[in-house]
Amino acid sequence: MSKYVDDFRSAAHETVDWISEYLDDTRRYPVFPRVKPGDLTDSLPSAAPQTGEPFDAILKDFDKLIVPAVTHWNHPGFMAYFGCTGSTPAIVAEMLIAALNTNGIHWMTSPALTELEQVTLGWLRQWLGLPEEFFGIIFDTASVSSLHAIAAARELADPEARENGSRPFLTLYTSEQAHSSIEKGAIALGIGRRNVRKIPVDDRFRMRTDALEQAIARDLASGKRPFCVVATVGTTSTTSVDPVPAIADLAERYGLWLHVDAAYGGGAAIVPEFRHIFAGVDRAQSVVMNAHKWLFTPSDLSALYTRRPDILRRAFSLVPEYLKTPEDPRAINLMDYAIPLGRRFRALKLWFVMRYFGREGICTAIRSQVAMAKKFAGWVDADSRFERVAPAPLSVVCFRFKGTDQENRDILAEVNASGRVFLSGTELNGHFAIRLAIGNLGTSREDVEQAWDLIRKAVPV
Amino acid sequence: MSKYVDDFRSAAHETVDWISEYLDDTRRYPVFPRVKPGDLTDSLPSAAPQTGEPFDAILKDFDKLIVPAVTHWNHPGFMAYFGCTGSTPAIVAEMLIAALNTNGIHWMTSPALTELEQVTLGWLRQWLGLPEEFFGIIFDTASVSSLHAIAAARELADPEARENGSRPFLTLYTSEQAHSSIEKGAIALGIGRRNVRKIPVDDRFRMRTDALEQAIARDLASGKRPFCVVATVGTTSTTSVDPVPAIADLAERYGLWLHVDAAYGGGAAIVPEFRHIFAGVDRAQSVVMNAHKWLFTPSDLSALYTRRPDILRRAFSLVPEYLKTPEDPRAINLMDYAIPLGRRFRALKLWFVMRYFGREGICTAIRSQVAMAKKFAGWVDADSRFERVAPAPLSVVCFRFKGTDQENRDILAEVNASGRVFLSGTELNGHFAIRLAIGNLGTSREDVEQAWDLIRKAVPV
Repeated sequence: MSKYVDDFRSAAHETVDWISEYLDDTRRYPVFPRVKPGDLTDSLPSAAPQTGEPFDAILKDFDKLIVPAVTHWNHPGFMAYFGCTGSTPAIVAEMLIAALNTNGIHWMTSPALTELEQVTLGWLRQWLGLPEEFFGIIFDTASVSSLHAIAAARELADPEARENGSRPFLTLYTSEQAHSSIEKGAIALGIGRRNVRKIPVDDRFRMRTDALEQAIARDLASGKRPFCVVATVGTTSTTSVDPVPAIADLAERYGLWLHVDAAYGGGAAIVPEFRHIFAGVDRAQSVVMNAHKWLFTPSDLSALYTRRPDILRRAFSLVPEYLKTPEDPRAINLMDYAIPLGRRFRALKLWFVMRYFGREGICTAIRSQVAMAKKFAGWVDADSRFERVAPAPLSVVCFRFKGTDQENRDILAEVNASGRVFLSGTELNGHFAIRLAIGNLGTSREDVEQAWDLIRKAVPV
Repeated sequence: MSKYVDDFRSAAHETVDWISEYLDDTRRYPVFPRVKPGDLTDSLPSAAPQTGEPFDAILKDFDKLIVPAVTHWNHPGFMAYFGCTGSTPAIVAEMLIAALNTNGIHWMTSPALTELEQVTLGWLRQWLGLPEEFFGIIFDTASVSSLHAIAAARELADPEARENGSRPFLTLYTSEQAHSSIEKGAIALGIGRRNVRKIPVDDRFRMRTDALEQAIARDLASGKRPFCVVATVGTTSTTSVDPVPAIADLAERYGLWLHVDAAYGGGAAIVPEFRHIFAGVDRAQSVVMNAHKWLFTPSDLSALYTRRPDILRRAFSLVPEYLKTPEDPRAINLMDYAIPLGRRFRALKLWFVMRYFGREGICTAIRSQVAMAKKFAGWVDADSRFERVAPAPLSVVCFRFKGTDQENRDILAEVNASGRVFLSGTELNGHFAIRLAIGNLGTSREDVEQAWDLIRKAVPV
């Protein structure tokens, strides 16, 4: 074995031990690091080294300088945003992904990558109960998946846009509670922010279909061309679920492409008793779900499904001569369906995760997390100093201390300063609210109790 | 230690040994796998398992089913596309990235990620000789980096586009030899394919600046608004280098955003004697270089630099309430500069690579690869049955057998069928050419000799 590989072997074994200890007791670290902006920057040299350094020196600095500046998403007390935690099978898979470093530009550049991406997304499609004709492709983030979906919607509505550019009559509909990436995608694609209609929501933060239909009618009357509606199954703020069947009715009536943002909700849809949140999603033209959000896969693995791969391909295929390969119906060239040309072997980590846990293992974890969130919601409901500000259908609870916004911000800051729990906030009905999200495999009932204790102790006296 | 972590520890140690043997002797595998489309798919179950499986079973199937379908980009005989090979320090870093799974949405979600991304891109900027005001940000691919650059160019030229949508008068210029991602980016952004001018090249495949100026003048005369020119430093087909100083002159004269696609060439620019290919790049508004292309970093790590981060931010910032954090000039929120919201800790692998090799180590490797390509070009030149069809300024050689296109395609197919070498092809001046690219740390002089032997043996008699 060459010295180059032998050095790797030692360093990698050492790293496995470091990771094992890290995962076994992430609680030893503060969830949010005790650093100020610039601290890490100031501790690092202002230039890269001229000559190489041994693994030992790099790993030592990793431990001494980098780790103390990390926000520990693995920490059982991490209850901000979404869990977004990884799992051990995915870490092993990432080791192999990096080692193989095979690139799925087209089938020939990696048959394994190309075919495993289709196979694992087919498995996941079955778990989600989506129709067999849905074609799947992996992107880095839901933002990028949704951008592709909206581009496909434009391609269907206005095939000339590809040649002539976007035209200002296309209008897109989504709710006030939709993820910001929908608006950002529309801006990037040249649709224009003023052509994005943010439909009001009901008292449970779900898109109002009466308002949606009115907006469509208004636009049609003024010569606009409604082309796409984006429904959300599990909004980022409260995990509310839009009434997809009624939205699908309108989409069909008015000829709109229905894209469903189920980046978070898709995880729950795998569990039979939560499957109902996916009602109507089978009628969508496209749907995105993030395995890195609630499927125990580390970033990044966002799965985009569409029943119209022909349209996605028409929007993006542009094969230069040096990449042309003979066509074969079983040898898909994924580059033809996407903006990114290169493609990591992300499917391998999904394959590891699905096999390691099996559907039952994943359902058990998600059920337990939803149950913990319900328990927490119950504690909030039972304490008259607090109020819940949104339904908690899944594993996110939005609540506030019955006081000023500043008092709530102070409670959040004090809890997060403990280093034992990390929560985030949101704004609902014009008021700041605290948001507790459970999605980490390591989070136990005791961690949630501790969060509640810290919150109550932070209440102003 | 929990059983969950203990199982990981065993499987990860076993995986380190597998990777070490794989890297030490990748030659045992055929570069291109002996599979037909659908083979892997047919060997896998049609549904994911209901119950979880142990690591052993998954790793065994990885070895038995997945690896035999992989195109081995690590193989010393892999000389197709670009090297795009990884290196051992980056594999160790990817292990840690997956284990930490920390996410750089904004500074608070991971100070380490946010600051190390700025620090390492600062180091790389110094190596590239770019001015200090260049701000860097990491994307997955050059396609996505360039899309962001073109979007920033639009934001500067037509600030109303964000609100009102793209308008059909904006025109973009790039060469006939530019990467397809420029055209694809313009299509996605709603610029329209017909507003992309593909400027002819000279006999060395470099953009003709006289033709560029004529195209700009024609567009201005017809009421169009030239807004962006994309120059290439190291084209994908032949690694030709556009005359950036002259293009920068025109960009300044006509007020165009100059974006430089140095996805491949940026690697060479680190080496002092090849720095000349970066002449004029310091005058660009943006430049992309891929560390995963010639900097021994596995996919994906594309670095986008811009001297106008204010414009990039104006194009993409759209902060929802639940992600708002207090502002601090030293706490950048990377989500404000990008379409993707989530962000892997990719900077960690760049940090490992730069420290492990140092600038000297990287320069030595690149020099040696360029020297091997020159040696190969010399052999082609000395054999009267062959001809070179483009200059070979870096580590890519384009050549052809003096026969029909079909004969050249047959030679390529026969060489690739050997399993010992894998080359790709391109089209130049209307003819098919074979393309040999050296970029793999493991490739030796003997591998290049073997490639040449196989090519000559495949010549029709």
